Amino acid sequence: MRNIRLDVEYDGSRYHGWQYQPNASTIQQVIEETICRITGERSRIIGAGRTDAGVHAKGQVANFSTKSTLDVLSLHRALNSLLPCDIVIKKVADVPLCFNSRRSALKKRYQYWIWNCRIPSAFYFRYTWHVKFPLNMTKMRQASQCLVGEHDFSSFRSSDCGCGASALRTILHIGIEACPDGRLRFDIEANAFLRSMVRTLVGTLVEVGGGRREVNEIHSILLAKDRTKAGMTAPAHALFLERVFYPAQDGNNSS
Amino acid sequence: MRNIRLDVEYDGSRYHGWQYQPNASTIQQVIEETICRITGERSRIIGAGRTDAGVHAKGQVANFSTKSTLDVLSLHRALNSLLPCDIVIKKVADVPLCFNSRRSALKKRYQYWIWNCRIPSAFYFRYTWHVKFPLNMTKMRQASQCLVGEHDFSSFRSSDCGCGASALRTILHIGIEACPDGRLRFDIEANAFLRSMVRTLVGTLVEVGGGRREVNEIHSILLAKDRTKAGMTAPAHALFLERVFYPAQDGNNSS
Repeated sequence: MRNIRLDVEYDGSRYHGWQYQPNASTIQQVIEETICRITGERSRIIGAGRTDAGVHAKGQVANFSTKSTLDVLSLHRALNSLLPCDIVIKKVADVPLCFNSRRSALKKRYQYWIWNCRIPSAFYFRYTWHVKFPLNMTKMRQASQCLVGEHDFSSFRSSDCGCGASALRTILHIGIEACPDGRLRFDIEANAFLRSMVRTLVGTLVEVGGGRREVNEIHSILLAKDRTKAGMTAPAHALFLERVFYPAQDGNNSS
Repeated sequence: MRNIRLDVEYDGSRYHGWQYQPNASTIQQVIEETICRITGERSRIIGAGRTDAGVHAKGQVANFSTKSTLDVLSLHRALNSLLPCDIVIKKVADVPLCFNSRRSALKKRYQYWIWNCRIPSAFYFRYTWHVKFPLNMTKMRQASQCLVGEHDFSSFRSSDCGCGASALRTILHIGIEACPDGRLRFDIEANAFLRSMVRTLVGTLVEVGGGRREVNEIHSILLAKDRTKAGMTAPAHALFLERVFYPAQDGNNSS
């Protein structure tokens, strides 16, 4: 038996998220069906991040077991030639049997993109949230730093979050950068995320940046452990799973 | 009577090009119908470049006559709120009656994007031509410089080109740049273009870059005035009308 790691990039626009669902097209299902066409085996793949409907990935990591003896290069070529053009396998590697893309992950990085301009964009509308009002970068950055560290993020999890009882997570980094073309990029790194956590964090920070909330409200929102105290959930189509980090000995790291 | 200039950005993926066609959705038609909804008038808009099916624009320029007294800001807002999200009006301006977006144009700049990587991209596939084999930048740059200047571009016009009898055009600039993310960008500026000229130029330069043609073949292709002597027509979906240039006094310049 082999354990194969896949580094996957996808445009989530056409899919109902990563995870298998009956009667809906998901990334996991499309990749599993493609593997079955190549190896003849019904493999179950494990994804590091269960991205929601519409969410994209530049660095999703998955793994699956197989008895196939197909070499890695041929498997890689076969996958990309059979997958639709909005799902691309960036790397294929044989990894130790103990590697589990979800459980072995040390931390993940998400990116969230905003098009902060009065006039919309005919190109970025697929991948950015269009926020027309001006955003105060200093205030958003100040507010974001209140979120860094270990906290109970109950106020920032969606009501249907199935990530377990504890909402204790550690945010390791939040960066907010303005690109020359008018886009804003949020980089959020944490040991693990709750469902809709990045989108609720960004939605709340945008309310701070737009002057609808004060910077120091973040503390009381965290302490409240009440989803109704935080801001709106930012739209899914501007969120990217950017990278999953693993210990150096545990399979190749995603680049 | 007023003359209104529109600076237009569009993702051409869903359209059968700029120009009006019966029984097909075109950019011109969608904008004309939207103007009609706002002003109640059936206006005919003139576009600087008649982009083909699937071709995009970041800086298309159009103009139309109207008796409407609606102020420019309200017209701008109304257009963007009614247009589909893949067509965006970047600017609206009252211009002199003599301004004609096509006839007043001094020169145009097109961009062509290539994804030059063995592995495809789940995001760039919409807007780049995927060329898997390595391209020699030096050879492509050398070949491109043979095309700069006034030439008869008969070898680079499509068989159904309706741009008049003369194929004499002046290419003012060709630049080829490699982006850090793996994309290649061709910038081509000319006083005017023939139908499919940029795509045939790029298709031919890629054959030079891939080693299928010699750099010095460009001269003989130009002299042959025969479309069958040039290379393939590169796909439409990676081509952008980037900017149209006008004399300073003739309406605002597009930015």
